[in-house]
Amino acid sequence: MSKYLHTPVDPPKVTDYNLSGLVQAMGKTAFQGRNVAKSVEVWQNMLEDNVTILLGLAGAMVPAGMRRIIVYLIENRLIDCLVATGANLFHDCHESLGRYHWQGSHLADDTALREEMVDRIYDVFASDLDFQQTDHFIADFAAGLPQDKPYTTRHFLYLLGQELNKTGKENGILTAAARANVPVYCPAVGDSSIGIAMALNRVKGKCNFQFDVIQDVVETAQLIYKTNASGVIYVGGGTPKNYIQQTEVTAYLMGHETQGHKYALQITADAPQWGGLSGCTFEEAQSWGKISAKAMKVSLFADATIVLPLIVNALAEQAEESIKNRTKPQFKIDQAVLEVV
Amino acid sequence: MSKYLHTPVDPPKVTDYNLSGLVQAMGKTAFQGRNVAKSVEVWQNMLEDNVTILLGLAGAMVPAGMRRIIVYLIENRLIDCLVATGANLFHDCHESLGRYHWQGSHLADDTALREEMVDRIYDVFASDLDFQQTDHFIADFAAGLPQDKPYTTRHFLYLLGQELNKTGKENGILTAAARANVPVYCPAVGDSSIGIAMALNRVKGKCNFQFDVIQDVVETAQLIYKTNASGVIYVGGGTPKNYIQQTEVTAYLMGHETQGHKYALQITADAPQWGGLSGCTFEEAQSWGKISAKAMKVSLFADATIVLPLIVNALAEQAEESIKNRTKPQFKIDQAVLEVV
Amino acid sequence: MSKYLHTPVDPPKVTDYNLSGLVQAMGKTAFQGRNVAKSVEVWQNMLEDNVTILLGLAGAMVPAGMRRIIVYLIENRLIDCLVATGANLFHDCHESLGRYHWQGSHLADDTALREEMVDRIYDVFASDLDFQQTDHFIADFAAGLPQDKPYTTRHFLYLLGQELNKTGKENGILTAAARANVPVYCPAVGDSSIGIAMALNRVKGKCNFQFDVIQDVVETAQLIYKTNASGVIYVGGGTPKNYIQQTEVTAYLMGHETQGHKYALQITADAPQWGGLSGCTFEEAQSWGKISAKAMKVSLFADATIVLPLIVNALAEQAEESIKNRTKPQFKIDQAVLEVV
Amino acid sequence: MSKYLHTPVDPPKVTDYNLSGLVQAMGKTAFQGRNVAKSVEVWQNMLEDNVTILLGLAGAMVPAGMRRIIVYLIENRLIDCLVATGANLFHDCHESLGRYHWQGSHLADDTALREEMVDRIYDVFASDLDFQQTDHFIADFAAGLPQDKPYTTRHFLYLLGQELNKTGKENGILTAAARANVPVYCPAVGDSSIGIAMALNRVKGKCNFQFDVIQDVVETAQLIYKTNASGVIYVGGGTPKNYIQQTEVTAYLMGHETQGHKYALQITADAPQWGGLSGCTFEEAQSWGKISAKAMKVSLFADATIVLPLIVNALAEQAEESIKNRTKPQFKIDQAVLEVV
Repeated sequence: MSKYLHTPVDPPKVTDYNLSGLVQAMGKTAFQGRNVAKSVEVWQNMLEDNVTILLGLAGAMVPAGMRRIIVYLIENRLIDCLVATGANLFHDCHESLGRYHWQGSHLADDTALREEMVDRIYDVFASDLDFQQTDHFIADFAAGLPQDKPYTTRHFLYLLGQELNKTGKENGILTAAARANVPVYCPAVGDSSIGIAMALNRVKGKCNFQFDVIQDVVETAQLIYKTNASGVIYVGGGTPKNYIQQTEVTAYLMGHETQGHKYALQITADAPQWGGLSGCTFEEAQSWGKISAKAMKVSLFADATIVLPLIVNALAEQAEESIKNRTKPQFKIDQAVLEVV
Repeated sequence: MSKYLHTPVDPPKVTDYNLSGLVQAMGKTAFQGRNVAKSVEVWQNMLEDNVTILLGLAGAMVPAGMRRIIVYLIENRLIDCLVATGANLFHDCHESLGRYHWQGSHLADDTALREEMVDRIYDVFASDLDFQQTDHFIADFAAGLPQDKPYTTRHFLYLLGQELNKTGKENGILTAAARANVPVYCPAVGDSSIGIAMALNRVKGKCNFQFDVIQDVVETAQLIYKTNASGVIYVGGGTPKNYIQQTEVTAYLMGHETQGHKYALQITADAPQWGGLSGCTFEEAQSWGKISAKAMKVSLFADATIVLPLIVNALAEQAEESIKNRTKPQFKIDQAVLEVV
Repeated sequence: MSKYLHTPVDPPKVTDYNLSGLVQAMGKTAFQGRNVAKSVEVWQNMLEDNVTILLGLAGAMVPAGMRRIIVYLIENRLIDCLVATGANLFHDCHESLGRYHWQGSHLADDTALREEMVDRIYDVFASDLDFQQTDHFIADFAAGLPQDKPYTTRHFLYLLGQELNKTGKENGILTAAARANVPVYCPAVGDSSIGIAMALNRVKGKCNFQFDVIQDVVETAQLIYKTNASGVIYVGGGTPKNYIQQTEVTAYLMGHETQGHKYALQITADAPQWGGLSGCTFEEAQSWGKISAKAMKVSLFADATIVLPLIVNALAEQAEESIKNRTKPQFKIDQAVLEVV
Repeated sequence: MSKYLHTPVDPPKVTDYNLSGLVQAMGKTAFQGRNVAKSVEVWQNMLEDNVTILLGLAGAMVPAGMRRIIVYLIENRLIDCLVATGANLFHDCHESLGRYHWQGSHLADDTALREEMVDRIYDVFASDLDFQQTDHFIADFAAGLPQDKPYTTRHFLYLLGQELNKTGKENGILTAAARANVPVYCPAVGDSSIGIAMALNRVKGKCNFQFDVIQDVVETAQLIYKTNASGVIYVGGGTPKNYIQQTEVTAYLMGHETQGHKYALQITADAPQWGGLSGCTFEEAQSWGKISAKAMKVSLFADATIVLPLIVNALAEQAEESIKNRTKPQFKIDQAVLEVV
């Protein structure tokens, strides 16, 4: 028998009713099913190896209902740092203020929706007027901050989280992150309703401070070279994935010995053959030194709204001890410059 | 508030440890996550409405480890008829004979595999020599059948299932279907190792019977017009999907009143924008009358190796009563011509 | 400088107005653009090496308007054998009878279309009543054939092509193939309107002959081992791709020395990560011996309606001499058993 | 005959050798082929209607060899504003300095590449050491600018283009844009090697200015409400697409009457069913008012490295007069605040 033939594919039984049982059964299958199980395994290894875990979050994950799961990840420290699109953070703020995203249909008549001022995100609806209220909340919050210095997006988002902890109606990503001292970065902050709100302030002369997007780059590199090792989790691609990937390059160019991320998990509906960074493999990233040549890694080709709940629930069930016993990296995030404790 | 805004997106909690709890929680989310829950709902409705349920199975689902799930569907009559690619049935036979598919890596060196006579199916390996043994088993089985008449693929596969029930080592799709009187069709039987085995027989003068692929078409149309209503489930596209879709057209052209399939669920990694039948929407199928204008339907864009175990496990958990109480259509499949009892 | 850095990416100029100039310029780029140029190169090499060229055709390519291009390939012998889905051959027959497919919109209201008996194929419309007339044409043609023997799909389609040459209104795939002695196979003939037409005949007792789908398998294997070497071109996946791929396995199991296809080009909108044969790489096929370890090969991830016209037009322009001077394999296709001359 | 059946699909002839002839022939076909022709039509209408044309550029388009095409678009004013990922602009700078991207293979051994310090982008290679030189060039350039004020990315990129016009070796995107007064924005400037270069400067105390990413948002909104109407072209999704889409929302919230973009063309390998902004339809965008309810629009699902050269070459050939006679919007981009002339 060939050395290649060592472990038979062994299909799951349909009595694997409990969740982690099912996911473990998937580990005996193939294709993306096996990658679900492998994803749980990679993440659990990150937790047990006490590396710094960075999560990149792209795609309309908050409107899609992934918010409580991200909150869980933050509160239980299955992640140590979040890099997100502005949209996800705006939508998080929107829900923390007690407003909603609504179930809809991707087949809806968009002209009719427009007449009712209902915005569509595939099969999710939202009230445009409600969105405008959230715009104004953010604009007013920013206008109330000291205007004499620039803010990293991390510091700004921390302060916004604190504000929401005081005045909001629901717990969310930013509120949980502020309480848990988990830094949140938004590399393309201008490219979102947060950016729009700030632009409205600017033309009204209400708010003139700068976002220090370069200090953000400095800080995220420090997260890498001031801690022992790193693991990365990408939900979608976009700026969050590239931004976390580039931390290894930045740290290296700053003169630090870097090894590349030690663990890597990505959930994507993109594909490598188009050449973009969003869909590229971790093997490709190894040529750049962004991912360690010895990394434990998995690419899971799936819609995150299916697999993220599955993976996180399975971790919650089967990795309870690993989560509790984890030595978490500690940061001071309530100041102009992040400090790795 | 707009009439469009009636049900808020309400993210799942990470304490939804039991499986159907998680899937129900997904029903409150969006994108493909919600479609997982919708898929369970559509299937459960099929079961409770006592329609005839046809499953189209394409893609390397048996090598990927979905075999026991298909067996479960047959034995518990969550489906009433199976239309499959020849490959899936060959691979099922292979495993029933006690041979394996093996876990491998999609990054393996294919030249090295070739030297070891190991065949790769993405991240699944198989022994080429073992496959040849299964080829010969099928060839010998066919050569042993009466040669004086044509066989529908349904009758041939029933007899093969019976043979495997006698001489095989493992229960599988064909064995379960033969015992449960679930007809199995293979529209492209020549396009598979079954076809290869038959061609080997043919050149050796061992086996000269014809596959009556037209009687197959007649029978599958009868499944529709001789029962009350139908529900369809497609795992992948290819010939199985089109073949089941066309039953409505055939029945209509045979002079029967048809309404289109009443329930429709498809799990696919394909997409509509390429224009192919495999990825097309059920809305498109409504223009043809293949799917009822009032059908309950859902398209789930996902790798079936992730969602099929999830959906079927959730059904097993939450639809136990519906499964038990179902009035199942009854067929006589152990004869040259199928009979709807 | 690293040995890996040998040929710079050298972007095309926007003065490459002529077609083969543009395609050659694409050869200096990357991603799928480069694969367009590579596809032309692989195909041209097939032509110059005088191998037997087999084209697999799946997806609704005739409704999409690719018919004249396939006709060109047959008449000018850029291919030597065609394996197609039944749908493409039915639609070809439909157009040869002077009927049409019509431009439409993928956003059309399918319920409204149904009321007008208009069938939709993504953004193509067709008259359902016209389709029924073509069904009846095929049924009547088949009923008029001698009924005392089985027909390979190749022989049946040759005879249908001859009939259309006599009574049709337009030149098409089947008419051209019949005149050019290019064999056409349809492995899943039951899975199409051809199969439906035959089933209608069957229930009316009008036509009882069998399709000899196993002799088809025998013949397509002979195409491989009775000629020097082979090149394969796949437009889409489905049965045509697998069927042509399996010829190497069949020929080997029949006792012939086979090397795997020597040239391989596929145009697909599918992807490898789902594990199916339709989207799998030619590297995977090398593990099976279906594709030669030394094959010249390219996978072009694109909608064929964009790249097929581009590639074929570029070949017509730049490979004129190669096309003319080619030594074409010769077949006798107007008899029950194919003969390689 | 149904009203739906008005224009037959009329397949292209393989004698449509000239480029615009081929593209016009594609207009008679279906699926994405027709969308190629439609894309040319939409773009040509933008040119003839004298709207302000904004191009969003995402994905590794410069490494893939699309640079000269973008330069052509700028120099001949087929576009009036560019929004790009930082990576594309960094890679443009790299090539303007006389350095290269190299043809490679997506199957290369990434560990071997790493040892040679060769970075892989799918099937493109680059020298990591060369990249570092470009990093230092950008860092030094930035350190030489007046440090007492923030810079919009538009102003910074203009100055960088001017510098490259003086000291570079090749014409490129930034050099052409600087000469042609075409504003270039980079919403996620920190998320790229430009951001890395600035972070290196920052930790060395060499360069402390801020990027005024909010003024960028203000300016891009002005591009919309200070001109008559707008047309948008998206190559890929990511920040460039969302950023240009949001200009309509920002302008509206600033108190201006907006109608949504009047023309819209997107080239994408993404798909709507994942719910992300990158793959979403223009119909969805109409619910938000980002795209006019009456917009002329097309979504082309294809790899841009295939279709962008095709579309732009066809425009250059068939729209020569429209390009020449176009009334172009005029901007002053060589100052801290953009001016619409």
